[in-house]
Amino acid sequence: MNNALKATLAPTLRSWIESANALASDFPIQNLPFGIFSDAVNPQPRAGVAIGEWIVDLAALERAGLLDAHGTFDKPRLNDFIALGRETWRDVRIALSALLAQGNATLRDDAALRQRALVPRNGATMHLPVEIPGYTDFYSSKEHATNVGSMFRDPKNALLPNWSELPVGYNGRASSVVVSGTPVRRPNGQIKLPNEDRPIFSACRKLDIELETGFIVGRGNALGEPIACEDAEQHIFGMVLLNDWSARDIQQWEYVPLGPFNSKGFATTISPWIVTLDALEPFRTATPAQEPKPLAYLRHEGDHAFDIELEVTLRPEGARAATTISRTNFKLMYWSMAQQLAHHTVGGCNTRVGDLMGSGTISGPTPDSCGSLLESTWNGQRPMKLEEGGERAFLQDGDEIVLRGWCQGEGYRVGFGECAGQVVAARG
Amino acid sequence: MNNALKATLAPTLRSWIESANALASDFPIQNLPFGIFSDAVNPQPRAGVAIGEWIVDLAALERAGLLDAHGTFDKPRLNDFIALGRETWRDVRIALSALLAQGNATLRDDAALRQRALVPRNGATMHLPVEIPGYTDFYSSKEHATNVGSMFRDPKNALLPNWSELPVGYNGRASSVVVSGTPVRRPNGQIKLPNEDRPIFSACRKLDIELETGFIVGRGNALGEPIACEDAEQHIFGMVLLNDWSARDIQQWEYVPLGPFNSKGFATTISPWIVTLDALEPFRTATPAQEPKPLAYLRHEGDHAFDIELEVTLRPEGARAATTISRTNFKLMYWSMAQQLAHHTVGGCNTRVGDLMGSGTISGPTPDSCGSLLESTWNGQRPMKLEEGGERAFLQDGDEIVLRGWCQGEGYRVGFGECAGQVVAARG
Repeated sequence: MNNALKATLAPTLRSWIESANALASDFPIQNLPFGIFSDAVNPQPRAGVAIGEWIVDLAALERAGLLDAHGTFDKPRLNDFIALGRETWRDVRIALSALLAQGNATLRDDAALRQRALVPRNGATMHLPVEIPGYTDFYSSKEHATNVGSMFRDPKNALLPNWSELPVGYNGRASSVVVSGTPVRRPNGQIKLPNEDRPIFSACRKLDIELETGFIVGRGNALGEPIACEDAEQHIFGMVLLNDWSARDIQQWEYVPLGPFNSKGFATTISPWIVTLDALEPFRTATPAQEPKPLAYLRHEGDHAFDIELEVTLRPEGARAATTISRTNFKLMYWSMAQQLAHHTVGGCNTRVGDLMGSGTISGPTPDSCGSLLESTWNGQRPMKLEEGGERAFLQDGDEIVLRGWCQGEGYRVGFGECAGQVVAARG
Repeated sequence: MNNALKATLAPTLRSWIESANALASDFPIQNLPFGIFSDAVNPQPRAGVAIGEWIVDLAALERAGLLDAHGTFDKPRLNDFIALGRETWRDVRIALSALLAQGNATLRDDAALRQRALVPRNGATMHLPVEIPGYTDFYSSKEHATNVGSMFRDPKNALLPNWSELPVGYNGRASSVVVSGTPVRRPNGQIKLPNEDRPIFSACRKLDIELETGFIVGRGNALGEPIACEDAEQHIFGMVLLNDWSARDIQQWEYVPLGPFNSKGFATTISPWIVTLDALEPFRTATPAQEPKPLAYLRHEGDHAFDIELEVTLRPEGARAATTISRTNFKLMYWSMAQQLAHHTVGGCNTRVGDLMGSGTISGPTPDSCGSLLESTWNGQRPMKLEEGGERAFLQDGDEIVLRGWCQGEGYRVGFGECAGQVVAARG
């Protein structure tokens, strides 16, 4: 990491955009996450960067000659920009950091340009930031895999033998990945009730969340050319929050032997702002000890976890207060993103710019740190109390779920914003 | 189906292109499958239709004012053409059938246009016909599921309880779907040997094929809006042959609990010509009896199977003769394509134009009708003899596998051409 890039991460850095300097802002000048937005003035989706309460219209800055991305900011997805490569992402980051830093007058004192290039976040519509050619979901939290294994298989052998040897993952459905704020319709499907001979067709009765993060591939690999574990982070553009909505009753009936399908394919929500790996660099921390020591192709030196605080809230329809239903941390994950990507490609599988790789449900060791209701209510047997009365075993129609995540720095935090979705009733 | 469309299917129809009238041609005038090709004269990939030993350059015919597809034939993938809708596919079919029919002089007697619009198939390069936004693989052969269940689980309860209630399927990896002729590199990966405590990293030792067909979605559905079983065939553009290459040793170790991943993601080969559902119409036949009777959302009246003969050959490197290692028929499949698509979307999952849906391995009741070596050699225990000596339990480097499929009409056959791939040695 060169000095110019390092300077963009200095904890002391402040912006002339005052709202970016608030202690609780997810979007200080150290963050600069990328997304796709539109607004009433210009309904054309285009690339932006969040800063405090504002969005920087990158296309407007490029037209003004202040950034250079070969016109890719004017597209409705970030893929073409991302495909320009890591040096370009970094050049844009360095240029933006300078433009937004306290003391830089170029944009600050140009009222006409500010008018064109700064859009209030609260009036903007956020779109899916990338076209997602492939969506893969991993299963890399030891606590989550242990909980699920105990519940559905055997508490004595909760963790299957392959789990500690490789980052178990499977292909998800890319078409139904939606951006935060998209309503989530409760799915219908086949459910097998315990006392019935045959399944019934019904609306899901055990609708659940999965608290995850996801990373976006920034540089793909050719078919037959694996990505080495040591190089893998260079292929990652950034991270998002991800809610892998799950229909537990449909899942339990359908998933043997080929894995979850309709129980997951109805919606997967991601947060709209992609936080770059560069912005997360100061929060890099030690990967949990791995025992047994992974096979050579899964080994990497140094720190490959990131200290990201995570929180989930549930607000029933009409309620004033949301209830925090989980608090955990991404750094607990057993397998790193680098290991996931190395494993994904080791047999020759190719990846492409914009591919989304989910972490798997992130659970801590206690019920209040579980990333799914399945775990925290133990398959509905121990419902949780809500802030304003009532309880939840699984989700009810109207419930709004919000995932939040942030890295706590000294005097600032690098946040992800919200990954939200409200449950709507099943199709009649 | 209107009369003009019916006329394109008449068994007595003949073309002025003589090679299309050969009894053994896969591409008579009744077929007219769509693909993407390029040639030495024009290296730009574009849309074509196979007829006998020739390819009709559709873009050239559109420029000549003989077809109308809004310029979509000049694209390197068929998606934009397919997205124009079923009426357009049919109009193009009807127009082409007329142009190529015996007695029609428009193209036949225009030497200059013929020169531009007819390209010899043997000099052309075929490309992936569609951009594939999503690849789903089903598991719809009762014989295959029974064989695999007997081998890996319990011969007494080989078929899992959900199998006869729903078309089991899972998400595959779309990025590694390749066109016929692409070499297939033997994957490396984790293998767990029976007498070892831990897995090893090794080249796959049990490389296998899976004989499948696939269908291409021609009209998608919006998120939350299922496709009814009765309407499902209207969403299908056509079919291809599909070889779902499988690394059995990697698969066995990785697949619990979330399904196959690296064991499949290294390559999936499809044939280059998409045979439309319209061309297959005369070969529609009864779906096998389904017991128990499916739930209401999986029911359809009438015939929904297609009588497609299938054959697999294996030719070791340097051998003169290929050995036929399987012969079976698509009509044996328990679940129809319509049922697969209805099930895929019943929970709200959206599909998109170009989505590929694999049938699952197609196996008949006898060892010589199995769609995988896993089954025909019973996991390698009963190797098969090859034509020129030697035997095979699983694939060796240099082996060339060719899938072929055709519908036998009276005096003609509607064929798929070849779905071929040669195994190359693992990466060192």
